[in-house]
Amino acid sequence: MKLGTILVVGAGFAGATYARALADHGWHVDVVDRRPHIAGNAFDEVDETGVRRHVYGPHIFHTNNARVMAWVRRFATFVPYEHRVSAMLPDGRRTVPLPINRTTINTVFGLDLQTTVEVRGFLDRQAVPHPSPSNAAEYLQAQIGPELTDLFFWTYTKKMWGRPLEELDASVVARIPLRLDDESRYFPDDRYQGLPSDGYTGLVGRVLDHPGISVSTSTPFQRELLSQYAFCFNSMAIDEFFDFAYGPLAYRSLRFHHRAEPSSYAFAPTALTNFTNNSIYTRQTDWSLLPGHLLRDTGAKTITLEEPCDDFDNGMERYYPVPASDGSQALLYARYKALADREPRLRFIGRCGAYRYLNMDQVINQSLAGARAWLSGARQ
Amino acid sequence: MKLGTILVVGAGFAGATYARALADHGWHVDVVDRRPHIAGNAFDEVDETGVRRHVYGPHIFHTNNARVMAWVRRFATFVPYEHRVSAMLPDGRRTVPLPINRTTINTVFGLDLQTTVEVRGFLDRQAVPHPSPSNAAEYLQAQIGPELTDLFFWTYTKKMWGRPLEELDASVVARIPLRLDDESRYFPDDRYQGLPSDGYTGLVGRVLDHPGISVSTSTPFQRELLSQYAFCFNSMAIDEFFDFAYGPLAYRSLRFHHRAEPSSYAFAPTALTNFTNNSIYTRQTDWSLLPGHLLRDTGAKTITLEEPCDDFDNGMERYYPVPASDGSQALLYARYKALADREPRLRFIGRCGAYRYLNMDQVINQSLAGARAWLSGARQ
Repeated sequence: MKLGTILVVGAGFAGATYARALADHGWHVDVVDRRPHIAGNAFDEVDETGVRRHVYGPHIFHTNNARVMAWVRRFATFVPYEHRVSAMLPDGRRTVPLPINRTTINTVFGLDLQTTVEVRGFLDRQAVPHPSPSNAAEYLQAQIGPELTDLFFWTYTKKMWGRPLEELDASVVARIPLRLDDESRYFPDDRYQGLPSDGYTGLVGRVLDHPGISVSTSTPFQRELLSQYAFCFNSMAIDEFFDFAYGPLAYRSLRFHHRAEPSSYAFAPTALTNFTNNSIYTRQTDWSLLPGHLLRDTGAKTITLEEPCDDFDNGMERYYPVPASDGSQALLYARYKALADREPRLRFIGRCGAYRYLNMDQVINQSLAGARAWLSGARQ
Repeated sequence: MKLGTILVVGAGFAGATYARALADHGWHVDVVDRRPHIAGNAFDEVDETGVRRHVYGPHIFHTNNARVMAWVRRFATFVPYEHRVSAMLPDGRRTVPLPINRTTINTVFGLDLQTTVEVRGFLDRQAVPHPSPSNAAEYLQAQIGPELTDLFFWTYTKKMWGRPLEELDASVVARIPLRLDDESRYFPDDRYQGLPSDGYTGLVGRVLDHPGISVSTSTPFQRELLSQYAFCFNSMAIDEFFDFAYGPLAYRSLRFHHRAEPSSYAFAPTALTNFTNNSIYTRQTDWSLLPGHLLRDTGAKTITLEEPCDDFDNGMERYYPVPASDGSQALLYARYKALADREPRLRFIGRCGAYRYLNMDQVINQSLAGARAWLSGARQ
C-alpha cells in the first residue's frame, strides 16, 4: 500500500482535475492512462500542414461557470472564439446556420420572414402536435414539423447514432435550441468561450505538472493496482471495469478521414459543417478556421471528416453514450453503478464513469466538487 | 470494388512508404490506421514543457543507405545528431558509455588500459569460451565474460524481455557491438544520422500528403474491406489478422512514466540512459538533449522512463518481437506466414508483418523495394 497515495485512472479532464485538486491538498497522486498521451479525447497536435488538430474531434471550450473558468485560467491562456456551425444543404452548394434560426428557415423555404413573431407563426403551422413526446422524433415534429426534422435531423441522426430518431430519447435533440432571430452563435448564453492558446494538451499538461503527481502513459488499468492505493478515482468505462458482466453499455465512436486542401480552400463560413445528405459523414472540420489552429503557412491545411461507428471490438474509443429512448441503457448503467457503489475505495468519474455526455466545463466542475467532497470526508 | 485503388493498413513508416510509392505511380491509395494519429510508433508531439516527445519511445534516424536518405529528404530536413547512450551504474552516481568501450571497462574495473591490444587482452582473460553459443548468455560469456555480462546485460535483459538471457537468441545481443577504443557513438558506421526537424509526425505527414492518398485515422482494419480493393498492403500484426488461430506471437511492449524536471536537470551526458539496477525501469530519456527537442523554454522539461511489459489484452501496442532462443516464435510466425501466402491480394508489410525488429531505414528500404517489385509485376 502506498500510504497517502491516490490512484487516478485516465489523464483526461476528469482524471487531471481530480489529480490536481488532490495534489494541491497534499496528496500524492499516480495517474495512469492506457493511451500513449494525456488529455484524453481532448488531445490535440499540430500536424504537417501546420494546423492544430484535435485528434478525437473538435473540442470547443465554453462555460458560464466563473469558478471553472478561473480554475482553467491557472493553466492556460484562452484565445477568444465564438463557435458557429453550418449545415450544408443536400444540394451540396448552400450552407445555412445551425442551430436552425431565421436565416436557416428563410433560406430553406425561400421566405423572407422578418420578425420573431413571423418565424414563430411559421413554425407553429409546420408543427405536428404531440402532447407528451416520448422520443426525439415526436419532440421534433412538435417543435419544427416534418420538413425541417427530415432535412436537419432525420438523416444526420441516423448517421450519428446508427438508429432512427424514434429510438432516441428526446433529450438528444432537446439540447439543440431553436432560434427565432438571427442568432448564429452555437453557445450564445455562455459567458466564457475560447480555445486554449497552446492546445488542450498544453492545458492538461500543466494541470498535471505538480510535484505530487506522477503520470504514466501506455499504462492500462489493472485490478491488482487497487490494493496498492488509499483510494482510486477511475474514469475508465464502468462496464469494462466489471468485465461487461451485464453486457456492454452502448456507445458511439468516430472514424476520422483527413484530406489536405490548399490554404485558400473555403467550404463554409464556419470551422464546422454538418452534412444533411446521405453520405457516411456527419460533419467536417476546417481546423484553420479555429483561432490559433493554423500555426504555420505551409500552403496546405487539413480537413477532417467524421464517420460515426461502433466497432468497439477493434479497440476504438468510446465517445458518446447512446441515449436510447427505451431507457435500456440508463437501466444497464444503474446496474453497473450499483456494483460500483459496493467498492469501498473506488469512485467512477467523468463521462465514462457517469455514462453521460458531459461538456469539458461540466467535467471540470463535477471533478472539482467531487474532489472537494472527498477531501472534506477524508479529513474527518 | 474500387478499381485502381489499393488499401494500406497502418500509417506508420511501412504503410506510408508503400502508399507514397504507389501513389507516385498513379495508384489511388486509401490508408487506414486504427490509432487516432499517423506515423505509427514514431508519432511525436510537443508537450507542455516544450519538449518534443516521441510518445512510443525515442526514435533515432540512422542509415547507410543513400537511396533511403535521398527519399526521406524529399519529406523532411534533418538536424544532425550523433546518438550516444549512457549506462547508470548500480551505485546510481556514475555513468559509463554504452555500448561497452575502453572507458566503460576502465571505469568499471578501475583500470587504465591504453591500447586496443590491452583491452582485447583484458577481455580475453574475462571471457569464458563457448565454441558455438546457443543463446544470448553463452554468446556474452564468450565475448566479455561473466562480470560485464551480469552488470550490463543480465538485469537489463530480464527487465527488457521478461526472461533470462539463456532463453533469448544470441542475435539479441550480437547486434550490440563491443569497442576496444573510446568510440562512444551508438551508430559510428552509419553515414547519415539525424532527427527530422519538425518531428516524425511532420515527416510521415508529408509522405502521405499526395492527391492520390486518402488517410483515415481511428479506423481499425475490417476484413470486409479486402473485397473492395484491388490489393492490400497490411502492416497490422499477422497473428491478429488471423484471429490468433495458432495462438499469439510473443511481443514486448512498454509503459511510459513521465516526470517534469527543471530545465537545468542533468542526469547523464546523453539523452538516453540505461539502468543497470534492479528497478522496473530499463532506461530514461531526457528529450531536451535531442537536438530540436527542447522547443520552448518553459523552465521545465519532461523526463520519460520506460517499463517493459506485455499486457496485450489491455490493448497495448506491440513493440518488439521476442527473439526466443528455442525458435518457437520463428516457427509460429512461419505458420502464420504460410496462411498469409495463400491470400492472393494481400501482403503483410513492416515490423508486425515480418515479425522482425526493423530500424526505420530498413522499413523504408524494404517498403520501397516491395512497392517497386509489386508495381513491376502489376504492370505486366
